[in-house]
Parts: sequence; structure tokens; C-alpha cells
Amino acid sequence: MRIGILGGGQLARMLALAGYPLGLEFTILEPAADACAGPLATHLQSAYDDPEALEWLTRHTGCITYEFENVPAEALARLQQDVPVHPSPAALATARDRLLEKRLFQDLGIETAVFAPVSSKRELLDAVERIGLPAVLKSRTLGYDGKGQVVLQPGDDPLEAWVAIGRVPAILEGLVAFEREVSVIGVRGRGGELRFYPLVENHHQQGILRLSLNLHEDPLQSLAEGYCRRLLNHFGYVGVLAVEFFQVEDRLLANEMAPRVHNSGHWTIEGAVVSQFENHLRAVAGMPLGDTSALGHAAMLNLIGELPDLDTLLAVPGLHLHLYGKSSRPGRKLGHITLLERDENALREKLAQVNSLLSNSL
Amino acid sequence: MRIGILGGGQLARMLALAGYPLGLEFTILEPAADACAGPLATHLQSAYDDPEALEWLTRHTGCITYEFENVPAEALARLQQDVPVHPSPAALATARDRLLEKRLFQDLGIETAVFAPVSSKRELLDAVERIGLPAVLKSRTLGYDGKGQVVLQPGDDPLEAWVAIGRVPAILEGLVAFEREVSVIGVRGRGGELRFYPLVENHHQQGILRLSLNLHEDPLQSLAEGYCRRLLNHFGYVGVLAVEFFQVEDRLLANEMAPRVHNSGHWTIEGAVVSQFENHLRAVAGMPLGDTSALGHAAMLNLIGELPDLDTLLAVPGLHLHLYGKSSRPGRKLGHITLLERDENALREKLAQVNSLLSNSL
Repeated sequence: MRIGILGGGQLARMLALAGYPLGLEFTILEPAADACAGPLATHLQSAYDDPEALEWLTRHTGCITYEFENVPAEALARLQQDVPVHPSPAALATARDRLLEKRLFQDLGIETAVFAPVSSKRELLDAVERIGLPAVLKSRTLGYDGKGQVVLQPGDDPLEAWVAIGRVPAILEGLVAFEREVSVIGVRGRGGELRFYPLVENHHQQGILRLSLNLHEDPLQSLAEGYCRRLLNHFGYVGVLAVEFFQVEDRLLANEMAPRVHNSGHWTIEGAVVSQFENHLRAVAGMPLGDTSALGHAAMLNLIGELPDLDTLLAVPGLHLHLYGKSSRPGRKLGHITLLERDENALREKLAQVNSLLSNSL
Repeated sequence: MRIGILGGGQLARMLALAGYPLGLEFTILEPAADACAGPLATHLQSAYDDPEALEWLTRHTGCITYEFENVPAEALARLQQDVPVHPSPAALATARDRLLEKRLFQDLGIETAVFAPVSSKRELLDAVERIGLPAVLKSRTLGYDGKGQVVLQPGDDPLEAWVAIGRVPAILEGLVAFEREVSVIGVRGRGGELRFYPLVENHHQQGILRLSLNLHEDPLQSLAEGYCRRLLNHFGYVGVLAVEFFQVEDRLLANEMAPRVHNSGHWTIEGAVVSQFENHLRAVAGMPLGDTSALGHAAMLNLIGELPDLDTLLAVPGLHLHLYGKSSRPGRKLGHITLLERDENALREKLAQVNSLLSNSL
């Protein structure tokens, strides 16, 4: 079966790498000439709403998926007329809009920080009044890697903050004094089969994920799985869904969801029996799901902006390197490293060693 | 770095899958239009000795390797003038010729079955006289998967056997009453660094490898490693070398060597810290070698001729499927399965389960 992927970045690249062994083939629809999945797929180099490209995909693929969230809804609607699109465009529409997303969390009984919509000056001032400061003002759409958000401290001018994010429709959220950021990745098959990966702990730097740690048997696993399950079943979802949470004591406050393979699941390539990439493809192609168990304690470190000396890294025993074939640029995810150890202390030691090799260490 | 691979079959495909995460890119030189590595590489669809294709490779690749053994020597010589070719064409020339290969084994003190060259009727009769029957007559070149060889039983007409393999230059080998067939895979880096994978036990069916088992800590490991090391150092070899042996009590008789990634090492994709494919690429590209330790007890089963029902296979927990994107044909390797368990008994049970699912079970 040929899978069409909207987007041709590192997620598409890792999907293709996981999918060839299953006998799948890939076409990416991606406007950029130097897409990092390009060497691993046939590449339709067109806009996401190009009618000819969409027509080609409906004729030559058995299923469509996507690797990023800003695909035009009309393109998905066009594709859906003739070919299955997974995960469901409804899930994508919700995930793209922080207000719809938070309201769905609320409707499904998934805890969140307090929030209020901001689409006018009046709403903004009401929201500040109700939620209090500090709080975070976030654009409803197009935010990622910490972009499109501003923290409001007591005394700050809310209007100035709103102007800073372009005076776009937004939400104001209470700033959560969280202990940890964690995420869970679930996968649902075409027949409703469900699997969940172990919860991971995430560490961000300047709004960009830097480190994910899977340390086994987190006490919050079943709470996170339950929330993720509600979302998967609500949408009749097919594929991988990631949900990010703030942990406050023994509560999890849902921050956002991503209807796709997710950076906090890259550790599963070496660290789980079957990776998130393979399971996403198994799901969307209608195959049985694979075992999501962890093979040990794993750490995933993003390589951001500039690559360190690769020979030094590769000389570290048990270090797994994943480069995306991208050129250097500040803040750009160029690759990641996975470390896998049977023992947590061994993992912590290896992680310290690797961090000392990376120029911008944690 | 762009790596040029001569040949575009499943070995090239698995090299490419292992190499993209290292930041490598691939071009295959392969005359067949439907090469299974085609979707994963740029494809020069030309004869192996096509001057333009060879010229292109010297200009655009940082290093050349090969995935099969019948590349014309002149093509390698041409490439070598301008770009490193690994493993060394001298190793390839030796591996392609059973007589040169056996003589090298002898010169390096690596035990073999008794053998004698056969290039004339007189030599044939002398060889039979000296070695006795039963024995195996094998063409010196172009033999693989049991092709180009005939077993001579007492009373058989040696000349008839020689005619059956085309009266080509051959060797006669004493038939070894072996207990096991085993193989070892070694890898040597550009700077002479050496690593060895655990010995595996191989089971053939109609001359084709059907099953490889890595059961850990084989008592013959160090003997096999020693033999492999002599070969690697003899050639100043760079890349992966596989050596197949017959085990007779505590002796190993070298049967043949393959100067490339090898079917009996496919289990290393899931079963070792770093796979034979990644280590071959690390070696030829001049990177530090990776850890060859096993992650558990592993079994690799080839899927030959026709594929079984894939959903049934994929539903087996912990089963890893590797399809090569080839159409069915009797005797053709279409893919393989890897099973990995921490415990040998668990592996044996899983293997029995999977065999019962395969139509042509062991």
C-alpha cells in the first residue's frame, strides 16, 4: 500500500523509515524542494491545496496521513471524498485551535488549567480579571515550540501582550506551578484496538522540547492513559495521538494534544518493542497494532540549531543517532539522540556524559 | 556523505534504512528497474560497467560499497582510481573464487574441509582419488544459495557431476559430517578498530538460509572471532565480513566468506545494540564503530517464495517484519522475521508458534 503523507519533514522521514519494512511505500506532498523525507519517498512538490496533487494522491494512495497540523481543512475534505484520511480531520481541527481543544478536554472530564477565550479587548480584560496574573496569553492557532505565547506577570499590560502576539484570537490560561511536564502517546487501530506507551517526562528549553525521559512505571500512567483513551474514542481516532500534561501533585492538567507522531515519542524507535512510527502506520494502514512496551529506561535528546561533533557522539557506546538531513539554523531540530539502558542509574550517568559533549548542555 | 552501492537488492535497501539516521544519502547502481532499494535511493539504472554511471559515482559519492559479489573487477578498478571502495576489491576477488578463498583460509591457518582444484578431467579424477567420496563438487565462481554444486556419492560418475555444473573450473571438497553450521560477522573500521557479533547457528533448506539463531555465549565464539580477525587484518579490510563455518566437535571448518552484510546478520537490526547494516556504513564512511552486543536471544526467519498472511504475523507480540518489496517467485527471499526474547526458552516457544503460522514450516 502507498501511504500519502501531507508534510515532508523529519516526522515523515521517520514514518518512511519505519514503514518500508512493513511493505509500505510513501508519497509526500510538501512544497519545500529540500524536504527531509524527500530522499525516502516520491515527492509531490506542490502547495497543500494544489488540486492536481490532491487528485494524484486520491488515485495512487491507499490512505492519507499528515505529519504537521497546518494543512488546509479544504485539502483534507477533498482527499476524504476518495481515500481514508487518518487521524480524523475533526481531531486535527480541534488540535489546531487551543480554545476548541481546551473545551473538549473539559467536556470529556480531562482536567486543564483555568482558561478563558480572548477575541476582543473586553474579553481580554474580563479574562485577566477572572483568571488573575500571572497567566499565559496564547494564540488559538498556529502556535508551536513556544511561539505565539506571552507570559503576563502581575503589573504587565494585557493589551500590550495581546498586540505582541498579533491581536489574533487567543486564550488566556492560568499559569500552572507544575512539578513536571509529561506526555502520553496512545494509538488506536481501525477496529478500535488501543495501546499506550509509557508516560514520559519532558524538559523544554526556550519553549522547545530538549529531553524526554522514559523511566518506567510512572504512578500517573493510568490517569494519563484514561484521559488519552477518552480522546481516542471520542474521535473514533485511527493512528497515534500525543497528549501533553502539567503535573501538579497527583493531578494531570492537559496542556495540548497532537494528532500525529510526536517528538516526545522518538525514544520508542529503540526504546519500545514497536515504535510510535510503526504503530501509527500499522493503525492507518489497517494492520494489527504492535507491542508498546518499553525495552528499558530511555532518554531522547534533541539536537537543536547546530550539530555537535558526530564522531565524538558515535563513539559513546549505545548512543543512537538520528539525523534529519537538515542544515543548521538557530532553534531548528536537526536530529536527536536516544540512550537506552536497563537500569535508571546507568541511564542518568550516560545522559550526564552525553550532555557534557553537547555544546548547549542542559 | 553520499554512499554509492553497487547492487540494489534487499541488502542495499536495509543499508539505506540504517544509513539515513546517520545523515548518509544513497545512490544505487543497479540494472533492474524494480530494484528493491529503488524507493530509498537515487537509482542509476545502468550496467555495472557503464562508464557514464561509474563516472557519476566517482564525482558524487564519498565512498563506494557493494551488496553483491558479481560486480565486474574492471568497474571496481575504475571507481577505485577516484573514490574509496570498501570492502577492498581484493577481498571480493578472493570471496568470488572458491579456490582462492580456500587457499587463503589455509594460508592463514583457518581450518577447512579437504579440497582440491578441478580444471581438467585429469584433475577431477585425481581429486576424487585423493579426497574420496562422498564429496561436493562446486564451481569456483558464481555459486550462491546452493547453486553450482553437486554432491558426489560413492559410485557416482564424477565426470557427469562436472558436466552438470557446466564443466567450469571447480573445486572438489570432502563432504563434512558437521554438527552445526554457524557464522560470525566481524567489522573493521578505517583505523583498524575491530568488532564481532555473537556467533549464530544457521539452518538451510534446499540450500537457502532459512533460520539463524543467536543464543548467546557460544563456546566457539573466540575461535570464530580469531579466524575472522585474521581475514579482516589480512586484507586491511573496511566494513562487514561474514564467515560461514561447519562445526565438527570443537573445530570450525571455514566454508566461505562474504565481503558484505550477510543474511545471517539480519537479526542484528533488532537483536544487537547497533546492526550489521549501521556498522558496515559506519566503517566505510569512516565513523567510529558501534556496539555489537546482543540485546537478547534472537531468531531470524527468512520468508521465501511466497508471503504468509501478514496480519496473522503482525498480531504475534514482539514479531518484527521486514519486507523487501519484491514479488513472489519460488526460492526468492521476499523478507524476513526477527524474534527477540530475553530468555532462550521463550524464544524457542515463540519460534514454534511462528513456524506453525508459516506454510513451509521447518
